[in-house]
Amino acid sequence: MLSEETRGVFIISATPFTDRGEIDYGSIDSLIEFYLEKGVHGITILGMMGEAQKLSFAETEAFIRHVLGALGGRVPVIVGVSNAAFVNIRVLALTAMDAGAAGVLVAPAMGLRGDESLYEYCAGVLEALGPGVPVAYQDFPQATGVFLSAALFGRLVSSFPQIVMLKAEDSPGLRKLSRIRADERQGQRRVSILAGNGGLYLPQELRRGADGVMTGFAYPEMLVRVYERFAAGDPNGAEDIYDAYLPLATYEQQPGIGLAVRKEILRRRGAIASAKVRSPGVVLDSTDMRELDGLQERLERALSRLGRP
Amino acid sequence: MLSEETRGVFIISATPFTDRGEIDYGSIDSLIEFYLEKGVHGITILGMMGEAQKLSFAETEAFIRHVLGALGGRVPVIVGVSNAAFVNIRVLALTAMDAGAAGVLVAPAMGLRGDESLYEYCAGVLEALGPGVPVAYQDFPQATGVFLSAALFGRLVSSFPQIVMLKAEDSPGLRKLSRIRADERQGQRRVSILAGNGGLYLPQELRRGADGVMTGFAYPEMLVRVYERFAAGDPNGAEDIYDAYLPLATYEQQPGIGLAVRKEILRRRGAIASAKVRSPGVVLDSTDMRELDGLQERLERALSRLGRP
Amino acid sequence: MLSEETRGVFIISATPFTDRGEIDYGSIDSLIEFYLEKGVHGITILGMMGEAQKLSFAETEAFIRHVLGALGGRVPVIVGVSNAAFVNIRVLALTAMDAGAAGVLVAPAMGLRGDESLYEYCAGVLEALGPGVPVAYQDFPQATGVFLSAALFGRLVSSFPQIVMLKAEDSPGLRKLSRIRADERQGQRRVSILAGNGGLYLPQELRRGADGVMTGFAYPEMLVRVYERFAAGDPNGAEDIYDAYLPLATYEQQPGIGLAVRKEILRRRGAIASAKVRSPGVVLDSTDMRELDGLQERLERALSRLGRP
Amino acid sequence: MLSEETRGVFIISATPFTDRGEIDYGSIDSLIEFYLEKGVHGITILGMMGEAQKLSFAETEAFIRHVLGALGGRVPVIVGVSNAAFVNIRVLALTAMDAGAAGVLVAPAMGLRGDESLYEYCAGVLEALGPGVPVAYQDFPQATGVFLSAALFGRLVSSFPQIVMLKAEDSPGLRKLSRIRADERQGQRRVSILAGNGGLYLPQELRRGADGVMTGFAYPEMLVRVYERFAAGDPNGAEDIYDAYLPLATYEQQPGIGLAVRKEILRRRGAIASAKVRSPGVVLDSTDMRELDGLQERLERALSRLGRP
Repeated sequence: MLSEETRGVFIISATPFTDRGEIDYGSIDSLIEFYLEKGVHGITILGMMGEAQKLSFAETEAFIRHVLGALGGRVPVIVGVSNAAFVNIRVLALTAMDAGAAGVLVAPAMGLRGDESLYEYCAGVLEALGPGVPVAYQDFPQATGVFLSAALFGRLVSSFPQIVMLKAEDSPGLRKLSRIRADERQGQRRVSILAGNGGLYLPQELRRGADGVMTGFAYPEMLVRVYERFAAGDPNGAEDIYDAYLPLATYEQQPGIGLAVRKEILRRRGAIASAKVRSPGVVLDSTDMRELDGLQERLERALSRLGRP
Repeated sequence: MLSEETRGVFIISATPFTDRGEIDYGSIDSLIEFYLEKGVHGITILGMMGEAQKLSFAETEAFIRHVLGALGGRVPVIVGVSNAAFVNIRVLALTAMDAGAAGVLVAPAMGLRGDESLYEYCAGVLEALGPGVPVAYQDFPQATGVFLSAALFGRLVSSFPQIVMLKAEDSPGLRKLSRIRADERQGQRRVSILAGNGGLYLPQELRRGADGVMTGFAYPEMLVRVYERFAAGDPNGAEDIYDAYLPLATYEQQPGIGLAVRKEILRRRGAIASAKVRSPGVVLDSTDMRELDGLQERLERALSRLGRP
Repeated sequence: MLSEETRGVFIISATPFTDRGEIDYGSIDSLIEFYLEKGVHGITILGMMGEAQKLSFAETEAFIRHVLGALGGRVPVIVGVSNAAFVNIRVLALTAMDAGAAGVLVAPAMGLRGDESLYEYCAGVLEALGPGVPVAYQDFPQATGVFLSAALFGRLVSSFPQIVMLKAEDSPGLRKLSRIRADERQGQRRVSILAGNGGLYLPQELRRGADGVMTGFAYPEMLVRVYERFAAGDPNGAEDIYDAYLPLATYEQQPGIGLAVRKEILRRRGAIASAKVRSPGVVLDSTDMRELDGLQERLERALSRLGRP
Repeated sequence: MLSEETRGVFIISATPFTDRGEIDYGSIDSLIEFYLEKGVHGITILGMMGEAQKLSFAETEAFIRHVLGALGGRVPVIVGVSNAAFVNIRVLALTAMDAGAAGVLVAPAMGLRGDESLYEYCAGVLEALGPGVPVAYQDFPQATGVFLSAALFGRLVSSFPQIVMLKAEDSPGLRKLSRIRADERQGQRRVSILAGNGGLYLPQELRRGADGVMTGFAYPEMLVRVYERFAAGDPNGAEDIYDAYLPLATYEQQPGIGLAVRKEILRRRGAIASAKVRSPGVVLDSTDMRELDGLQERLERALSRLGRP
């Protein structure tokens, strides 16, 4: 089960589709094996980059059950359940937990204004979920428009023991992370903090006290190696690896087109059969493809220089 | 079936809940009879003020079937099917049409930028719906953030015969309405335009060529009488009625709290059993209640002065 | 000087231009006399609807000096000094106070996120202004994107004695007003609260404890009469007057086009020579003009029915 | 004078302040020499990261004159003149051109909705500027909220010969750049395109046809070397240099705190005396400082590996 002690790399899984836009169950299986082979410590499904919002309810339930079945408990799974309807959050969370998930990921509804509204919203979600479901709060105001102060996060953590994790992806967010860790040193309950934001500030976040990373970069082995080197007390070695991948990570983080890039890389690496992004979504053109070719070639050279194992 | 010739008052139906937040099927029935008794020409369910986003998928389907069954074809029904997932739009629309709906109401997904994105989005929605489903486009940028120019609406109308209606609730929007009617006089296919925005500019919109109104004001008889007086060639008489209700209509249009006010009025009028708004939602306090008491008393006096029939 | 005891109607003055877009000093003089004749208790210049952001710095200073000179202390003047630069806020405020203003109106800079940022922003503004300048805080998140909770307002009021007034125009905002008054009954320093938002909820706001209104409706006599009837203990008489004007007030509150409507009414009433709105701005067309004709005729009839004095 | 043929690196200049927040004219001089020494081909002052909005009008004019005087025509200067008031845009542009500027940079006013509004806004700005002022359009919707389609940019370019440059920093924006270049191959007037966005996609933008870059990275020599290698037909060599700086460039691009980082680097490099950001603004703390230490050390090592000249 997800807990305050959870650490490591939780890869945000893509949701594979066929070229015709149907869920590709075969590719789910291969993608899972790909992630495990790269050494991830957990998998998060149905995050924002998992196209959760483009699935029907039936597809969502089937997808949850399939992933958890295929994984068979080899690593913990967090399931994104953000939804405008508390009833849906509840049903999805129960489906997930029943199928063996370790916890759920929730971002607040768009448009909440002010601390009181956000506090009450969280209270409502947690009441809907019940006491048995461990929760990761996704702090991603670029998408939700909802700002979470460190002080309010402290109130939430004090009030609601179910909150065991923060997916930290506010921008700017480094100081908030430091502030939360400082508050914990003053007695606030410590939670797990995993860095998001495509890992763009991962070295900084790990140095400031993050316990790992939860993002969907198409080279999960980078996340794993960076995390492990840090954990092994070699932050500079970690950062050498990180820097080699940074041009591609930056490219993959482009708003609007980044998911299509990520899926194309996963396709090229054999993890999924089709790079299809469900409509409405972007299709890469030949210029995009050549650009990606070049970035991948440069990555190979950079890794050779590093003396890839 | 919904068509370019559709006229009149399409009331946006509330979705009644019990005090515990469950769908109240008894109140659906009484609410429908209330609306019919007030003379509405059609009913729109699962609009934004119908708390559509707070229902589970199963509840949504059940609600659609129940309303259409209870109405039994006495007036046409438009079903709101806006959803981030094309698959859900499609399934909801098929459910609705299969149960006897006259058409569907769709607002574009949030965050679309620029005419091309919006055009492609509409093309995708209409392809998902197929040729047999008449569509009302909801132009409500205050909620969606998506701006529709009159020129782009013209392109959509030319390209997609399924679009037969515009729910006009941009703000400012009066000139756009006039511009669309002017374009139609130049040969653009004419569509039905129903005014939204809580009816706040209804007299202006009817004068500029609206064919009626689609909103959820808790006194549907006002909308009906205003529409009918206009249709009968008595715009000033229509406006006298309208003005009597305007203080309450303005009060009911308050962002954030308006839906709770609307449901409380419907409850007071015996149309529904509980004013419950599903969480997250507002509960009226005693000050709000007294405020509403006063506005309703004033409405009664204003109607007496008008010589209420 | 502006104080916690300030009450009444502070009209937000338009800024008159010639047809060519230059400041029309003759019309400033006639407009001021118009406002005084209608009985306003104060005047606010360079508010958002005063096109403050379209003036050059030199024009702004000249305008401030001209208005204050022409008024000669007959009523207190509040000067809007909101600006992205603290140095400009300071210079404008000093210019205003030096010329005889009673205080300044400040809205926070756009994009502030969270209570701490807003608190620090206010601290910075108030330090720039110095202790001698009474300040009205403009709470208008629809324009600034900055949410102010009642709790944070309490902190600001406790920390900064210069804050003596709240221009209340959040939406929804009625409960916030009630909450602030309740906090004051618990010992929080009482401030003057003037209602904004075009006066659209003026009866409710006065009943909930507002001390008056600060808005720019083109019929200031309505605001004055409503305020005075309330003050005289006749809220229903007040509301009768209010309701007669509500159709025009609603029409004038349309986003984007409302200022052009307001200036056209002021022109028709002889208060200013030209309805010119500085570019970028809207010009009313013949349809808009006819619409306004009709609303004004209807107002005349409604006032006759009320037995206009 | 700025023209369609303008190429190279236009560094966005910081505006140096003393620790007390006053303009530091000595540091302006040293900063200019720093930029020139690093080989920039032009300088842009009073961009968004130049804290233009925090200067008083008098400071702005003095700053423009000082910079242009100190440069004495050694490289062309573009002056940011974006302002809500057309009168201010005009006065600032005339001041700038009179003092010897090569052209002006303008971003559209916030909140413009739709192509027609944006077209009319641009027409108004260009009329205010007159025919003699070359204009760079800043396409930065992340800050302005105004979307510019390639099609509308084509219309603007056809209508207004003064527009000679696009500062391309939409995100995603790579395809728009390619589309504009494609439209030019079909006969549309070619303009200069300089990449913005902190240079984060500079290699991609140069490959897609950008003529250079206009951004404020604190290591201008990187921008110059990357540009020159590309121009010399060695894109891979260019990208090697670029990649060495990317960790710092990414760090400097953090919203909210990036400008403080940039100024601190400039201070450490001896270009300016104080890293002061005018209020409201961020002050780096000791954790931020150590983070920056580490990134700069890593940059040194990366440059050594590249065999820094």
